[in-house]
Amino acid sequence: MLRIGYYQFRPQFGQIQENLKQVLNALKDVSADLIVLPELAFTGYYFKDREETRTLAEDPQDSSTIESLVALCRDKDFYLITGFAEKQQDKVFNSSLLIGPEGVIHTYRKLHLFSEEKNWFDPGDIPLQVWEVREANVGMMVCFDWIFPEVTRTLTVEGADIICHPSNLVLDYCQQTMLSRCLENGVFAVTANRYGADKRPHGELRFTGKSQIVAPKGELLHRSKSQKQEVFITEIDPILARDKHITPLNQIISDRRPEFYAPLSQV
Amino acid sequence: MLRIGYYQFRPQFGQIQENLKQVLNALKDVSADLIVLPELAFTGYYFKDREETRTLAEDPQDSSTIESLVALCRDKDFYLITGFAEKQQDKVFNSSLLIGPEGVIHTYRKLHLFSEEKNWFDPGDIPLQVWEVREANVGMMVCFDWIFPEVTRTLTVEGADIICHPSNLVLDYCQQTMLSRCLENGVFAVTANRYGADKRPHGELRFTGKSQIVAPKGELLHRSKSQKQEVFITEIDPILARDKHITPLNQIISDRRPEFYAPLSQV
Repeated sequence: MLRIGYYQFRPQFGQIQENLKQVLNALKDVSADLIVLPELAFTGYYFKDREETRTLAEDPQDSSTIESLVALCRDKDFYLITGFAEKQQDKVFNSSLLIGPEGVIHTYRKLHLFSEEKNWFDPGDIPLQVWEVREANVGMMVCFDWIFPEVTRTLTVEGADIICHPSNLVLDYCQQTMLSRCLENGVFAVTANRYGADKRPHGELRFTGKSQIVAPKGELLHRSKSQKQEVFITEIDPILARDKHITPLNQIISDRRPEFYAPLSQV
Repeated sequence: MLRIGYYQFRPQFGQIQENLKQVLNALKDVSADLIVLPELAFTGYYFKDREETRTLAEDPQDSSTIESLVALCRDKDFYLITGFAEKQQDKVFNSSLLIGPEGVIHTYRKLHLFSEEKNWFDPGDIPLQVWEVREANVGMMVCFDWIFPEVTRTLTVEGADIICHPSNLVLDYCQQTMLSRCLENGVFAVTANRYGADKRPHGELRFTGKSQIVAPKGELLHRSKSQKQEVFITEIDPILARDKHITPLNQIISDRRPEFYAPLSQV
């Protein structure tokens, strides 16, 4: 059994220290195995341009933000998955980091950039991969990746039990579709969304909250309110994601006919 | 513009002539371009075994049922897509046929067999393909194929504007998920389900109706009642399925990163 959940909050744009304080404070008394934070949880989202994104992004190997999160994981003996503006030499990625008591364990770089993110970030450049967190296999994707069924599917084929999904959603389509994603893949999903708005001189973006946890049959275990801070943790059995039967004669992964899906991976 | 729709009805098991009469009668005054009928619309669904399936299945090249449907298409100047138990030498497929005034135009053989269908039918053996019907590109899939996102996706990548989906659904998951399928692919979908029950000596199966037409943004255009006969036709603009923008900077098909989806087509 695994205690998983998320922290839905409202980062302030550009206030990395303030946002970090808010996260550390919200999680300091939480008992859990794995907690998911929103996309770009420390920088905020609505950048002006690529230069501003690079200014706020950090190299996780040289980041006091990450150091504090690792210390929190060590202190609380849990794992975190968080959205993070990741700087690597001349590149900057909209990433999700798996962090544990031992440090940064794995990095996912958002493959499908949404709207103006294409001006701010480089597209992800490393394969979708699954990592063990205690007895569960965990896959990561970020926000807009949800609309591409290939992402959750690839992670499932690679063995994911739980899809961890840091988000900054501005539309309302995703939450319902994630029920389909969990049903069609027989996996758990944790969508950690932010709420509030980024009010900038160049415009304003509002985020829709409604973070949620979904079980393998597409069952909604919990959904937060739209505009409210919440730490939510629940106990799940990740082993339920290993049984892909949908009838006694059908397993939704082994029943696939990949020899007929070639057009999907043709570049 | 294209007038598309479906006929939701209640086939009687094994009564091919009766079921044909019912279809011919229901459609004799209908004006349309393309009408979808349920899965296995003439034989019924709940076979006892493979031998019974073979006895009721027909070779479309030598079938008076098909001859009558072609004559109907010629008379009414429309196209039909229908579920059909297709016999080919020693094989029998759960197929969907595209029929027009010129005859049987294309055959799709269900790739993903549901539950006991695995005992009754051979799995589909030909690639997913798209065909022109007037100004639209049409792809076919059958019932349980809905749960595999690869099917609608492959048809979309190959250019489908409209997914035609003869069904005999016994569960309630599909209809909602088809909204996601249309949203994630930017296509129309016509799910033609049957209602009623097949009461056989070996058991009884009930079907859930609620046939529906969905537009490319996942918008439900019409859904039938669960247990009621209905011919439904509506006018759509198939060209709407060619614009895959979901934001000014995002197109859901060209934004795919197929170089990262290789695990999906690995056999």
